[in-house]
Amino acid sequence: MNDSILLGHGSGGTLSHDLIQDIFVKHFDNPTLSQQTDSAILKHDEGSLSFTTDSFVVDPIFFPGGDIGKLAVCGTINDLAVSGATPKFLSASFIIEEGFSMKMLEEIVISMAAEAKKAGVNIVTGDTKVVHRGQCDKLFINTSGIGFIEDKNKSIGTAEKIRVDDKIIINGTLGDHGMAILKAREFNRFKAPIQSDCACLNKLITEVLQISDQIHFMRDATRGGLATVLSELVKSRAFGIELSENQIPIRDEVRAMCELMGFDPLYVANEGIVVMVVGKDDADIVLQTMRKNKLAKKASIIGEITADHMGKAWVKTEIGGRRIMDMLAGEQLPRIC
Amino acid sequence: MNDSILLGHGSGGTLSHDLIQDIFVKHFDNPTLSQQTDSAILKHDEGSLSFTTDSFVVDPIFFPGGDIGKLAVCGTINDLAVSGATPKFLSASFIIEEGFSMKMLEEIVISMAAEAKKAGVNIVTGDTKVVHRGQCDKLFINTSGIGFIEDKNKSIGTAEKIRVDDKIIINGTLGDHGMAILKAREFNRFKAPIQSDCACLNKLITEVLQISDQIHFMRDATRGGLATVLSELVKSRAFGIELSENQIPIRDEVRAMCELMGFDPLYVANEGIVVMVVGKDDADIVLQTMRKNKLAKKASIIGEITADHMGKAWVKTEIGGRRIMDMLAGEQLPRIC
Repeated sequence: MNDSILLGHGSGGTLSHDLIQDIFVKHFDNPTLSQQTDSAILKHDEGSLSFTTDSFVVDPIFFPGGDIGKLAVCGTINDLAVSGATPKFLSASFIIEEGFSMKMLEEIVISMAAEAKKAGVNIVTGDTKVVHRGQCDKLFINTSGIGFIEDKNKSIGTAEKIRVDDKIIINGTLGDHGMAILKAREFNRFKAPIQSDCACLNKLITEVLQISDQIHFMRDATRGGLATVLSELVKSRAFGIELSENQIPIRDEVRAMCELMGFDPLYVANEGIVVMVVGKDDADIVLQTMRKNKLAKKASIIGEITADHMGKAWVKTEIGGRRIMDMLAGEQLPRIC
Repeated sequence: MNDSILLGHGSGGTLSHDLIQDIFVKHFDNPTLSQQTDSAILKHDEGSLSFTTDSFVVDPIFFPGGDIGKLAVCGTINDLAVSGATPKFLSASFIIEEGFSMKMLEEIVISMAAEAKKAGVNIVTGDTKVVHRGQCDKLFINTSGIGFIEDKNKSIGTAEKIRVDDKIIINGTLGDHGMAILKAREFNRFKAPIQSDCACLNKLITEVLQISDQIHFMRDATRGGLATVLSELVKSRAFGIELSENQIPIRDEVRAMCELMGFDPLYVANEGIVVMVVGKDDADIVLQTMRKNKLAKKASIIGEITADHMGKAWVKTEIGGRRIMDMLAGEQLPRIC
């Protein structure tokens, strides 16, 4: 096999064929993909599907806690899982810069395969395009995904079940992904170890959905962070949100780096954080269930749905003040995912 | 709205939100997309799904007969349709270079919406990433698609139904897309009008599947052209293929340009050509049915499945010789789709 990607690997001809066999089919190995038909054929019972897509352009492509491939698998699985669906099938489509290292490509594909396996999902169809040197930056990956969704969970991705006094729960510390990327990109002299939280949340979410039928809303807090999710959620609604800043878990080193760089951790991207809105009677049992999962050891009730200040999301600060959260304006960290 | 794409349009914050509302939701308009949940929720009866993905990096993004958006919609719809599925839902994911014209983006989105509508398919979920100037070339689009597939059509994308004496049919002239792109890119001084054949083939394919249960195989002849499809098809099989060169429809201007540039039209990419393998008793009725559709006025029986020369695809040339077709080696025209 060649050491680096040639334009011919995107031709649809023999080089494409070899790349598919020697890298993609080899590592993503499953009977559906091996058929190599123009589209994957999948069985499904009557009911509803969840369908999502995400393109990943993260820079750098390898970072502490993951790489672009792991991120592409987790990101799409999480989008399905927070909709209340059980993720089942992924597609993987690669846009590769001519000259990209074959060894790095294989490493990324292995990482995707491992993550998909752990999450119980098959990568069943794919595509590869190669562009000339300088026409893309190394490698972009699109993953799209299909999940199956039970009727009782169909409205979890909308906000229609949310009620006043519901509790807001997150499963871990904020800002780890964004600061890990920023550090890897520009500040490697900053010594504190910061790792991306990049992880597939589908098993954690299944555990929670099994223990409670009071999960009224979920979303993963990726680009724009927790603040953007909640301000988007509350916009034009007949309720408000109030968070307690001192309940929001943030690692010391992430907080320090945010302060140094002038970032608000509530706006920094995460790749393994789910925000749940849970009926107040179930909040404690949900919290206890979550904390048994290693992706949610630091799960915390961070606030609640209020009848006051409709359409607004507030934070009670540690020193006793209050500030409003709004959607992220402009761009904080390009190519964070 | 801004005149050009800013990094903030990919931030997940307010600019992303505005772009989604003012361009994507506006033109792709359908109830599922308007929900703007993390993934689209879709109804489905028991049975099988067809799932496919394709990234589009065509250069130039506007060309005679289409643009990258139309191509992205047709390409994925065709991958579903040739699998025997009825295409139902598309995702659309954009990677955009900072500074790209908002007007051009909207034009492309309008073209996608028009094509999807014509094909009877909804674009139900999407994503946008923006990268710095110089980190991608203008605009790349990924479309993934879901179709529903009846049991009787499940093996059309594989080769298992193919029998000796089956006829090979294509719906139109070869090489139009590849030569239109090459001309638009580099040879606009070449005066002959050549248009891409870019089109959604799902309705044509439905008409054929309704008239015949002898459709033994289908594939669209995109990258690598007809020759690559057929040599891939015949590889390691217990049959051969023989084409009659004088039955293969090619426009004079495409043939002329191919000769001038040293291309073999059998290897040039098409974006509106389906190759069908049809039981010999049904070949004529299929041909007549196809020719009633404006995408198949020049449909032709171009060859047949043979018991001879197993595993090989041959062309009988017009001057009475025979040559073998193999998969495309290397790259002919990068960024053709």
